[in-house]
Amino acid sequence: MFNIGQLTSYVNENIGSIAYPDTPDSLFEPVRYMLQGGGKRIRPVLTLASCAALGGAYSDAINQALGIEMFHNFTLLHDDVMDNSDTRHGRPTVHRRWDESTAILSGDAMLTMASQLIMRCAGGHTEEALGIFNSVAMDVYRGQQYDMDFEARTNVSIGEYLEMIRLKTGVLIGGACRIGALMADADKEACDAMYAYGEALGLAFQLQDDYLDTYGNPEVFGKPIGGDIINGKKTWLLLSAMDGDPDAVSQAMSYGGQQRIDAVKEVYSRLSLPQRCRELIDGYTTRAIGAVMGVAMDSSSRAVFIDLAHKAAVRDK
Amino acid sequence: MFNIGQLTSYVNENIGSIAYPDTPDSLFEPVRYMLQGGGKRIRPVLTLASCAALGGAYSDAINQALGIEMFHNFTLLHDDVMDNSDTRHGRPTVHRRWDESTAILSGDAMLTMASQLIMRCAGGHTEEALGIFNSVAMDVYRGQQYDMDFEARTNVSIGEYLEMIRLKTGVLIGGACRIGALMADADKEACDAMYAYGEALGLAFQLQDDYLDTYGNPEVFGKPIGGDIINGKKTWLLLSAMDGDPDAVSQAMSYGGQQRIDAVKEVYSRLSLPQRCRELIDGYTTRAIGAVMGVAMDSSSRAVFIDLAHKAAVRDK
Repeated sequence: MFNIGQLTSYVNENIGSIAYPDTPDSLFEPVRYMLQGGGKRIRPVLTLASCAALGGAYSDAINQALGIEMFHNFTLLHDDVMDNSDTRHGRPTVHRRWDESTAILSGDAMLTMASQLIMRCAGGHTEEALGIFNSVAMDVYRGQQYDMDFEARTNVSIGEYLEMIRLKTGVLIGGACRIGALMADADKEACDAMYAYGEALGLAFQLQDDYLDTYGNPEVFGKPIGGDIINGKKTWLLLSAMDGDPDAVSQAMSYGGQQRIDAVKEVYSRLSLPQRCRELIDGYTTRAIGAVMGVAMDSSSRAVFIDLAHKAAVRDK
Repeated sequence: MFNIGQLTSYVNENIGSIAYPDTPDSLFEPVRYMLQGGGKRIRPVLTLASCAALGGAYSDAINQALGIEMFHNFTLLHDDVMDNSDTRHGRPTVHRRWDESTAILSGDAMLTMASQLIMRCAGGHTEEALGIFNSVAMDVYRGQQYDMDFEARTNVSIGEYLEMIRLKTGVLIGGACRIGALMADADKEACDAMYAYGEALGLAFQLQDDYLDTYGNPEVFGKPIGGDIINGKKTWLLLSAMDGDPDAVSQAMSYGGQQRIDAVKEVYSRLSLPQRCRELIDGYTTRAIGAVMGVAMDSSSRAVFIDLAHKAAVRDK
C-alpha cells in the first residue's frame, strides 16, 4: 500500500540527502538550487510507484527515482540556457543567478550524477537500467532538437508535433515507470506496459499544458494566458488551426498582444479545436489506463495510477 | 605487437563508423563535425595500447576508446561555448558554425553516447568501466570549475594549480589507460599502475602546453606565443613568478602587448622558471615511466609507453 503524498515526501527527503563531492562548492551549489526549486516530482514518484505496484519495496527504486529527477532537472537547466529564460518556479534561473558557464557545467555534472544514481541498483539489473536511461536520454535530446528545428520551419505537421512531444516528454515519463518496474524484477511484458502507461500519461500531460496556456484560469495557471499564441509557438492547437484554415490564422497572427490572442482563439473555436484537444487528451488518458489495466497488481495500486492519469488530464495548473 | 601509428589509424577508421540515430540530423551533424576535427587521438590510442600491452586484443577495447574520445570532444565542445572561442583546429567552433543551443544540446548527446560506447564491453566489466568513466567525468568537471574559479581569484597556490590540471587533464588520460587495462582483464594492481602512468603523462602534457605557450617556436606551435601572458592566465609559470617576486610581476603585467610578454619573460628568467618548469615536467615523465616499469608486459609494448612519455615532454607543438 502506498499513496502519492507519501512517495512525494520520500523523494523530497532523499533529494535532500544526495551526497556530492566535497569541492568545488561552486559546481554543486547550482545543482542543489535546481533540485530544491520544487516541481511536482511526478517522474520519481512514478518510478517508486511502479516498483511498489509490481511487488517491490518502493525504497528499492529510490536511487533510480533520484537519477530520473536529476536527469529531468539537468534538461530544465540546459533548456533554460537555450531558451534564455529568466525565471523558473518564481526564482532566477541558474544562468541568471550565476552565469552561463556555470549553468552549462553544473548541468553536465547533473547528467553524470544521474547516471551514477541509476547505476546504484539494490537488486541487480544495473546494465539494463542504464541501457534504458541512456536510450531515454537520447530520445529527450532528439525531441528538444525537433522542438528547436520546428521554430524555423513553416510546414510542421501535427504528426511531427506529437512525435516531438512524445520524445521530449512521453519517453522520460515512460522510462521512469519502466525502470521502477525493472527494480521490482517485473517481467518484460509488465515493464513494457508500465512504459506505455507513462508515455501516454506524458503526452496527455504535455497537451494539457498546451491547452491550459490558452484556456487556463489566469488566477490558477501561474503564467499569463495566451503566451504560446503571442510567441507563435507551434502547439497542437496552432498547427491544427493552420491545417484547418491557414488564411484565418495568418490574418489573426498579424495582430499583436491581446488582439492576437482573441483573434486566434476565435479561429480555434470556429474549428472546434478546444473540444478536439480535450478528446485527444482523453484518448491518451484512456490509453494510459488501458495499459495499466493489463498489468497484474493489487487494486489499490492500480487506483493510484488511474487517479494520476485522470489528474494529468483535468488539472488546472 | 602494436605501434602508435597503427592504433591511431584504427581509432580514426572506427570513429568514422560510429552509428548515430537516424534523426534529426541537425543534432548529430555537429557531433560528426567535432569528431572529424582532428586532434592527436592520444586518449583512445592509450586505451587500445593499455589493453594490448596487458594481454588483450586491442580491438577488445575499441568501444571504450571511442567512448573516451567522444567524452573528450564533448568537453571541448562545451568548453568552447564557456570560453566563447571562435576556432578550434583552424575551423569555426560548433557554436559559431551553428549556434549556442546546438552546441549545448549536441554536447549533451555526446556525453550520453560516450556512456553508451563505454557500456559495450566485449568481455564483461561493464559496471566497473562505467563506474570509472563516471568518476573520471566528475573529476574533469571539477577541474574545469576550478579553472573558471581561479580566473576570479588572486591567491591561487601552485598546489591548487597542479591539482586543477590533474583533475582537468591527468585523470582522463589516466582513466583512458585504466579502462584499456580493465578490458584486458588486468588485475587491480596493473590497472592502478596504468592509471598512474596516464595521470603523470597528462600532467607532463599540460605543463608542456603551458611551457610552449611562452617558449615555443612560433613557426611550429600553431598559436601566437605569449597568449597566456597576455590573457593573464594563471599557469604554473605565472603563479611561480607571483610567488617568487610579486612586485616584479605586477609591474610587468601593467604593460600591454609584446612589452608585457618581454617583461614577464624577464621575470621568469631571473627566477630560473624555464629550467624549473623543465625539471617539473621531467619529474612527471619519470613518474609515468616508473609506473609502467612496474607492470608486467613485453618490452616492445613498454617501449611504446616510454616513448610516448618522452614525446609528451619534448614535443614542440
